[in-house]
Amino acid sequence: MHGAVGDHGHAEDGTGHYQHLGGTQSSNRLGIGMDSCVIPLRHGGLSLVQTTDFFYPLVEDPYMMGRIACANVLSDLYAMGITECDNMLMLLSVSQKMNEKDREKVMPLMIRGFRDAAEEGGTSVTGGQTVVNPWIIIGGVATVVCQPNEFIMPDNAIPGDVLVLTKPLGTQVAVNAHQWLDNPDKWNKVKLVVSKEDVELAYQEAMFNMAMLNRTAAGLMHTFNAHAATDITGFGILGHAQNLARQQRCDVAFVIHNLPIIAKMAAISKACGNLFGLLQGTSSETSGGLLICLPREQAARFCAEIKSPKYGEGHQAWIIGIVEKGNRTARIIDKPRIIEVTPRGAPSNHDNNHSNPSPEQQQPGLS
Amino acid sequence: MHGAVGDHGHAEDGTGHYQHLGGTQSSNRLGIGMDSCVIPLRHGGLSLVQTTDFFYPLVEDPYMMGRIACANVLSDLYAMGITECDNMLMLLSVSQKMNEKDREKVMPLMIRGFRDAAEEGGTSVTGGQTVVNPWIIIGGVATVVCQPNEFIMPDNAIPGDVLVLTKPLGTQVAVNAHQWLDNPDKWNKVKLVVSKEDVELAYQEAMFNMAMLNRTAAGLMHTFNAHAATDITGFGILGHAQNLARQQRCDVAFVIHNLPIIAKMAAISKACGNLFGLLQGTSSETSGGLLICLPREQAARFCAEIKSPKYGEGHQAWIIGIVEKGNRTARIIDKPRIIEVTPRGAPSNHDNNHSNPSPEQQQPGLS
Repeated sequence: MHGAVGDHGHAEDGTGHYQHLGGTQSSNRLGIGMDSCVIPLRHGGLSLVQTTDFFYPLVEDPYMMGRIACANVLSDLYAMGITECDNMLMLLSVSQKMNEKDREKVMPLMIRGFRDAAEEGGTSVTGGQTVVNPWIIIGGVATVVCQPNEFIMPDNAIPGDVLVLTKPLGTQVAVNAHQWLDNPDKWNKVKLVVSKEDVELAYQEAMFNMAMLNRTAAGLMHTFNAHAATDITGFGILGHAQNLARQQRCDVAFVIHNLPIIAKMAAISKACGNLFGLLQGTSSETSGGLLICLPREQAARFCAEIKSPKYGEGHQAWIIGIVEKGNRTARIIDKPRIIEVTPRGAPSNHDNNHSNPSPEQQQPGLS
Repeated sequence: MHGAVGDHGHAEDGTGHYQHLGGTQSSNRLGIGMDSCVIPLRHGGLSLVQTTDFFYPLVEDPYMMGRIACANVLSDLYAMGITECDNMLMLLSVSQKMNEKDREKVMPLMIRGFRDAAEEGGTSVTGGQTVVNPWIIIGGVATVVCQPNEFIMPDNAIPGDVLVLTKPLGTQVAVNAHQWLDNPDKWNKVKLVVSKEDVELAYQEAMFNMAMLNRTAAGLMHTFNAHAATDITGFGILGHAQNLARQQRCDVAFVIHNLPIIAKMAAISKACGNLFGLLQGTSSETSGGLLICLPREQAARFCAEIKSPKYGEGHQAWIIGIVEKGNRTARIIDKPRIIEVTPRGAPSNHDNNHSNPSPEQQQPGLS
């Protein structure tokens, strides 16, 4: 779910008065105000699960932007433990302000990135719509028809569960800091805490993570009996945790102890007066990881399994908190532990930061 | 199908180099480059049929604009004889240039119009996405899961079939002429052939037609054994007829003899040097009617049946041409008969124009 202005029907989506966009949920519908809508079909106990998302480019590389847009749309399905997608539509607006030459260079790359990510997700783009607009817009619609066992409703968290996050935070800070490389006024504020190389590496790491599909994590949600999940995007880790907590059937609260953040981004945020609220969990993320409620005994196994080379390179997961009794809220503890996630492109002498702390290390306050 | 810039994968959609958006049609998919994509599902012989469309407002009434946008999206399903829609998503961009007050007035009305039309179509809006953008955009995604007998593939026309159209042409001319009422330079060019009342009535008629669902026509496609259909939007009657002809399995050609046009719009078009190519069939329509290939013996019955009060007010249909042997092309005859369709708000002394000519009258060249 992306919150640029927001998905319709989301309590925190910033659309304010456009709340009436939210579904009128009759009792036979599993409209949940969460990442995807779930519609019972007229046929054979099947459900239609569907999501749409579109936004404006935020990275300079058009191919990567296409991949990110597609990963971001699919992520709403993955957050429900769905690993398949039956169809993808692409939504595109071509900027009227671009000259023909730039347009011819940029748009095909963006489309190719989107298509490649769709293919990686086991689906393909069969249609869509293009308009001309002042700004570039890219997004899509992901649709799947599921049997009941193919998706996990995000409302079964119980006290004692553990919270796992599958991508590091800090994408917004990384993207912005990268823009500041060309803006001396801005750069002067942060140059004491980071080098240009740090920022370049963080930006690459953010881009890599945003473009990575949450599909492996979705599959492992079934293996390790996940009780609920959402994906982290426009409202930051805290916003989405709160939204997920609100959906729970049990009286639970989510408490976040650890914040895995792309290396140096916490320092940048602090140097700028806690820019974007990164340490408060309110910094916007794009195509972020899944936040998953797992049975306690499964969480460490989930984090170990996802790193297995059999799922390809680059997957990580961290235990970041617990589910306790409460009134369907979420909070970050007073002084959360910052896990500095070293970009994979970083020199190897930093590699000790990159290794995933053991589950015990990650669980202050879990005893 | 709307052609503002175009649906992806459409041979004539004006997107030019964005053709690679079109589906990569593997052999087990019924991707047809037509109004909707049809995806065979993994479950029980079912197919996913899906379409998306969005565009910029073209009428001043925001409520009607919402209805038109929704009718336009649903029309792609109706063109396949599908009368149900399992889910609708709304795509919206709120203009950053509107002040808060206008925004609060306009956007809820637009959303309500969209919702009301969805309800009339037996579906509801369960989600969507909103962004802020320089221009207002409204559109949606319509999705349905169908059994094989619920949809009619648009490729079975045979020589001897008759072409039927279910809404009059001329919406673009009507919308533009209405804008000219406030532009003396423009108005001077046409004031000899139309009155302001004519234009006002034509505009209302166009709006009514654009907002009307093609659902009744879709249902009657089954009753009267339709062989193929499409809906008329951005490429005009000729563009869509050509596109439909191209999809046919038999060696056929479509020949259009009659052009039902909102009254006076042909005169306006002529007065402006054949503005928009209305009489050549290239004038863009928005949320136009269905163009249906029917067995010859069924066409007149279809046109009579659709006027029945049991389907509500305002439905009409005209026999406009024939299907003959040919090489999958479509053309309009040299001097097509213009059927002047009197707006329903017109004084009753004009009513003789409004009545549907008998099928015989409508079929010059059919003997």
